[in-house]
Amino acid sequence: MLKGKMVIGQSGGPTAVINQSLVGAVLAARQEKAITGILGARHGIAGIMKEDFVDLTTQSVEQLEVVAQTPAAALGSVRLKPGRAECERVFEVFRKNDVRYFFYIGGNDSAETAHIISEMAREANYDFCTVHIPKTIDNDLRVTDHCPGFASAARFVALAFMGDDRDSNALKGVKINVVMGRHAGFLTAAAALARQAEGDGPHLIYLPERVFDIEQFKQDVRSVVAKHGRCVVAVSEGISDADGNPIASSGERDSHGNVQLSGTGALGDCLSAHVKEAFKGEGVRVRADTFGYLQRSFPTIVSPVDAREAREVGTFGVKHAASGAGNGSVAIRRLSSAPYASEYFMTPLASVARETTAVADAYINAAGNDVTDAWLDYVRPLVGDLPEIGRL
Amino acid sequence: MLKGKMVIGQSGGPTAVINQSLVGAVLAARQEKAITGILGARHGIAGIMKEDFVDLTTQSVEQLEVVAQTPAAALGSVRLKPGRAECERVFEVFRKNDVRYFFYIGGNDSAETAHIISEMAREANYDFCTVHIPKTIDNDLRVTDHCPGFASAARFVALAFMGDDRDSNALKGVKINVVMGRHAGFLTAAAALARQAEGDGPHLIYLPERVFDIEQFKQDVRSVVAKHGRCVVAVSEGISDADGNPIASSGERDSHGNVQLSGTGALGDCLSAHVKEAFKGEGVRVRADTFGYLQRSFPTIVSPVDAREAREVGTFGVKHAASGAGNGSVAIRRLSSAPYASEYFMTPLASVARETTAVADAYINAAGNDVTDAWLDYVRPLVGDLPEIGRL
Repeated sequence: MLKGKMVIGQSGGPTAVINQSLVGAVLAARQEKAITGILGARHGIAGIMKEDFVDLTTQSVEQLEVVAQTPAAALGSVRLKPGRAECERVFEVFRKNDVRYFFYIGGNDSAETAHIISEMAREANYDFCTVHIPKTIDNDLRVTDHCPGFASAARFVALAFMGDDRDSNALKGVKINVVMGRHAGFLTAAAALARQAEGDGPHLIYLPERVFDIEQFKQDVRSVVAKHGRCVVAVSEGISDADGNPIASSGERDSHGNVQLSGTGALGDCLSAHVKEAFKGEGVRVRADTFGYLQRSFPTIVSPVDAREAREVGTFGVKHAASGAGNGSVAIRRLSSAPYASEYFMTPLASVARETTAVADAYINAAGNDVTDAWLDYVRPLVGDLPEIGRL
Repeated sequence: MLKGKMVIGQSGGPTAVINQSLVGAVLAARQEKAITGILGARHGIAGIMKEDFVDLTTQSVEQLEVVAQTPAAALGSVRLKPGRAECERVFEVFRKNDVRYFFYIGGNDSAETAHIISEMAREANYDFCTVHIPKTIDNDLRVTDHCPGFASAARFVALAFMGDDRDSNALKGVKINVVMGRHAGFLTAAAALARQAEGDGPHLIYLPERVFDIEQFKQDVRSVVAKHGRCVVAVSEGISDADGNPIASSGERDSHGNVQLSGTGALGDCLSAHVKEAFKGEGVRVRADTFGYLQRSFPTIVSPVDAREAREVGTFGVKHAASGAGNGSVAIRRLSSAPYASEYFMTPLASVARETTAVADAYINAAGNDVTDAWLDYVRPLVGDLPEIGRL
């Protein structure tokens, strides 16, 4: 039996349930003889490099359960994509502290970091086990059916569109809502769950998986307004033109070289200006909202399936590691959609590192401005029951 | 006993509980012999002028209860501020249809409309009763302790800041959140409810009741970042400079001559650009979100006190009118904050029409960048219990 301390960290954009994974892992680790200490890394690998750890053996279960219900990374998160030198420093800290288990909760970049460190350990003949615990509201990890964190963000988006569509129905006009998702449109596609009756919005849904053509967009909006007297649009922050350039952004780039898309209203305001121009003189009210960080952090509305699965991927990852079964990333296999049932399995770190997935063609309509029923069948059980809309 | 039909309408920006007031009024009216028919006006006075009514005597209580739980105006709303000619047309429709009771659910503009029509009836010696039922997320009506609709929007804002503050704590940086409220900062001030421990955000709160100075703002942010390593800011969409000009807007004006402040990310992006400039080269992450229409329409998170009071102002208004007690606007008197208790009373239409209130000086700190404990004592019982934040 590989005996030693474990380090656990959280990485990337937080979610409403990432602390469920943390608490699931910590409570499981307390049951494992192989794990002789539980160190929580502050701000992921940034904290590991500084040996900035929290002892996670002492908190009461009651305290941890409150943490589990709290959105965003309780240990702190990090956006740093480490180079070779940084990974070496992490490995050095692990050796120094007799750390034999490393659990990293995050997306594809975190899986890659975990993979690099596990390779270093192998090359150094250091007995070591690395497990990646999946998390991302973008739902863009490979292999797994879906990603913990996604369904709660999707639930926020669905609820937001339900309420906003009633608001639009009361005052009419064109309403554009910008949803998170740089390369994958899963979260934007979840807006379709808001529809309960003929004529309900969102009436148009644009994902980054399709080229966005501003002229076609204006025509689409005009058709919907002609039919319904109003139009609610769901648009991904990541929509790009035929050359792959974002339709609008703040111009800022992060350390990954990505253009800043979130935390700015630029895209909504840009699309709003185009639609205002298209309807000039026709007295059509045009408004845009950008849902922003609330999508991943709003408390009290998490999906029950998501909360449970986020907890269980943490538990499963620790049990797997402690059993001596080796490195990997925890994935979810859907057994049934109605009633919903799933199970967990391990997939190689390399199979989820780096590359991501996008919304499948079968989930996008031919015109590229809506989703299909197959998409709704996929996403509905994850998001859970939504309130009924009353009408007169 | 004044016998005849009633018309009920909804006006202005919808809220999460305005349908509670509608359902409260309709169910009460069904019990009153004085009321011989219940006509719901589609889109407020716009619908009345077109005689576009829904018969509200036939729906089941079950259906109405689902409507009551649904955000936004189920009858449709309207932003039209009627002139003399439009009010005359409304009065003509009322006479023609033997309408003797008019209930208008809305803010100060709706109270003014109701007041003008009641004056017309008086001048024409037409026996008629007009009751204004208060509604506004802005909480800016005179006389009443607070306005139905406000507490649910305030609850959204408080929850949003709770989650977003944890997100900011996980990734650091400066986060600016723009909250609705053109002239009154009540909703922005509610962000303070998100704080549960020393160091929690929002760290700065700017209301439209104080002149906004961009240089002072940048200094304030710098001080908070120096102290806490991050800064979460709540700012009202209505903040203006010393000359009364909005800090940023889309430039569009509505039919009231108001500059468009909602449905655009302009202010957030403007403030974000200023802060980025101030921290240039220091690697400080700066993001802005504009909460937008979700504040008034997001389902499932209404304040229980708000839902109950919104229902009861509708019921009270109808009972008052049917009792023959005359015109007026329903107002709320707070009897106690702990435990919370309130009662309803009537105030003259003219006392709430046109003019509005703003956040009292006692609720704003001396520096003009935060609220006081007295404000928290006022707002907390309205918003209700909030979830506990877990920490490690």
